[in-house]
Amino acid sequence: MTMPLPPVDLVIEARWIVPVDPADLVLENHAVVVDHGRIIDLLPQNEVADRFAPRARKRLAQHVLIPGLINLHTHAAMSLLRGLADDLPLMQWLREHVWPAEARHVSAQFVHDGTLLACAEMLRGGITCFNDMYFFPRAAAEAALATGMRAAIGLITVDFPSNYAADADDYLDKGLAVRDQLLEEPLLSFCLAPHAPYTVGERSFARVLTLAEQIELPIHLHLHETAQEIDDSLQRFGVRPIERLGRLGLLSPALIAVHAVHLNAHEIELLAQHGCSVAHCPSSNLKLASGIAPITELSARGVNIGLGTDGAASNNRLDIFQEMRLAALLAKEQSGRADAINAHRVLRMATLGGARALGLDACIGSISRGKAADLCAVRLDDVALVPCYDPVSHLSYVLGREHVSEVWVAGRMRVENGQLVDNNEIGLIKRALLWQNKIRP
Amino acid sequence: MTMPLPPVDLVIEARWIVPVDPADLVLENHAVVVDHGRIIDLLPQNEVADRFAPRARKRLAQHVLIPGLINLHTHAAMSLLRGLADDLPLMQWLREHVWPAEARHVSAQFVHDGTLLACAEMLRGGITCFNDMYFFPRAAAEAALATGMRAAIGLITVDFPSNYAADADDYLDKGLAVRDQLLEEPLLSFCLAPHAPYTVGERSFARVLTLAEQIELPIHLHLHETAQEIDDSLQRFGVRPIERLGRLGLLSPALIAVHAVHLNAHEIELLAQHGCSVAHCPSSNLKLASGIAPITELSARGVNIGLGTDGAASNNRLDIFQEMRLAALLAKEQSGRADAINAHRVLRMATLGGARALGLDACIGSISRGKAADLCAVRLDDVALVPCYDPVSHLSYVLGREHVSEVWVAGRMRVENGQLVDNNEIGLIKRALLWQNKIRP
Repeated sequence: MTMPLPPVDLVIEARWIVPVDPADLVLENHAVVVDHGRIIDLLPQNEVADRFAPRARKRLAQHVLIPGLINLHTHAAMSLLRGLADDLPLMQWLREHVWPAEARHVSAQFVHDGTLLACAEMLRGGITCFNDMYFFPRAAAEAALATGMRAAIGLITVDFPSNYAADADDYLDKGLAVRDQLLEEPLLSFCLAPHAPYTVGERSFARVLTLAEQIELPIHLHLHETAQEIDDSLQRFGVRPIERLGRLGLLSPALIAVHAVHLNAHEIELLAQHGCSVAHCPSSNLKLASGIAPITELSARGVNIGLGTDGAASNNRLDIFQEMRLAALLAKEQSGRADAINAHRVLRMATLGGARALGLDACIGSISRGKAADLCAVRLDDVALVPCYDPVSHLSYVLGREHVSEVWVAGRMRVENGQLVDNNEIGLIKRALLWQNKIRP
Repeated sequence: MTMPLPPVDLVIEARWIVPVDPADLVLENHAVVVDHGRIIDLLPQNEVADRFAPRARKRLAQHVLIPGLINLHTHAAMSLLRGLADDLPLMQWLREHVWPAEARHVSAQFVHDGTLLACAEMLRGGITCFNDMYFFPRAAAEAALATGMRAAIGLITVDFPSNYAADADDYLDKGLAVRDQLLEEPLLSFCLAPHAPYTVGERSFARVLTLAEQIELPIHLHLHETAQEIDDSLQRFGVRPIERLGRLGLLSPALIAVHAVHLNAHEIELLAQHGCSVAHCPSSNLKLASGIAPITELSARGVNIGLGTDGAASNNRLDIFQEMRLAALLAKEQSGRADAINAHRVLRMATLGGARALGLDACIGSISRGKAADLCAVRLDDVALVPCYDPVSHLSYVLGREHVSEVWVAGRMRVENGQLVDNNEIGLIKRALLWQNKIRP
């Protein structure tokens, strides 16, 4: 008499699986076993039949399966401002275009609609989790939940009033209330999100730090994005922003330093010593002529790095495959070494690096037993993708997000055959065009 | 009594048309009138009915129509070596991987199959013309003709033997024979293609120059790609390569200088004074850690610039939309100005710039009366592409080649609804996989 096999929700058999952890591993003809939203096994396909009784199977004969991508920095709702103004320096772009448009148009409805649109774009492109920073975070959270996507919701604070809040404390109070309301949502986590050293004062940073320690949240902050930011800080405070944050006690493993473009050797050392993470946003940094973050050096010093798209207004896409390719290519040019930041390394940034920055690496970021089944399958049977000598090289250098075929978040299929499972793409486009007509300058 | 309207082959009505010449123009709700493969008019849609009797109409209600993209530098057949070896410096990559693989595998059949695959990838991505440099150019030409794509076939010469030819003269003799055989093909043109200053000697350059003047062909040459190339030239010849070419008389409007990454102010001036063109290949230059070509300065001095993908082995894609985005982004970073090389400028490089370099600007490169109907339509009704405040910004920064919906070459539709009209994609993939199994190291 044989024991009945344990029933499981889903077995995904893929031609290649890149689990990301352990590093540099490519498994051929393996299967991922999913039950109750979690990965419970990863084993050769021919061993599945003896071990499990799957309720559903997905065969991915020409595909590579990777962990869902993590967008470590975005302003999702700004998808509605995609391409509103281009080819302008950061401060002119912010002051003359983005901030006035935001003052006129941003509302809970704007954030909800813009985040829904962004979630559709991101999910279809293999992104299963995003780290957001924007006004009306509750509207963003609800859009993420409606889409079935994982999100780290930024509890934003700045020292100036907006349509959303009156002052720094009001921002934080509202943010904390959102967290209280949504604390039990399994797909949501939260970050404190002080906007930047030039928009947040000492008192607000102090409260952010207290909160971060009390309720153990990461701190999501723009930092050393432009040379001008550093010059201004030297003028106002007599020190560069990282030095100032250090004095305020904000350098810690909780800190997600977004951009980190302009760093001297001492600052790289400080970020490393304090276990800070960096959200590298190469497209945005190029587009606004901010510079190129020194990720080869940061990586060599052991600083954890994730990848971000920034908002669609400065990218102008929410495409982590694009950022992977660009991060790998720019690292080679910047270091003068074609072997800098290879394809495996950049995939790790786009997955486990982001998870670790968010404090979620026990839960997501690799295809490992016990982690959530956040997965992305990519088809390799396309004239633009053959031959394929190394699927990981293809992930970084060849394929585009259009080759994403299936996406699961916590074991729930959100994209099938390249299409959103239950999203109304036509409705999203119509809604975006209504906003376009309102916003058009 | 009214005169009967003149019958024409095709009218294409598009939501937006960007003719590229005149510069910076975006036409809304216009139509392109095509007859016998040529553009015979460009006019408002509501005037068509009074002027022409079209045999066919194509309505592109959510699209932008642009000139077909021109890939100004590739080695098309190297698509079969896509991703064979990555993350390596140029010389190690060439000597340890690419050259040995070529020595073992390159044949007329390899070139034919690899070029067919490359043509499929390029056409589907909106590229209607490519400037090729590889062994067995007749096989490449035949693949281009079979695909119905426009090609500038490089008559390659190098000073070392290969499976294709025994010595520099043999290369040129074989190349000239190919040109003689295919001279009447309307979609083909030819370039002399001495490989590079470090692989071609004085005698060969002299013969190339004589031929270029006699039969009026452009000269397609890798130039100043790496710092090492320049150091080696200083050691061997006592001068930098551009200086050496100048002494040999090769600097002229016929010269297409591929890469042109490392240029001092004097060399930029020389290229400008002699009316040379530059084929800018940003992905390849980053991937091999060669550097970033100074296109902002070149452009400011009036040097004509086109965009190239290089071969799929060093990119690893044949995607001019990707090169447009990267060219615009890198120019901003390199010049420190977010307003450098804007979206219109980079589209011009990818079309008219390439046409001018090839001496084909009377025939292709813009949507202008009398030019060939080489056209590319891109859909903008996608969640990743809305809203759209400026379709030209979207062309550079947002959309991907997957949004190409229709492509015409000389008025003949080659891509419809994102699919190759009469190409067997499955057959191409199968053939590529056979080569993969042979080549796999």
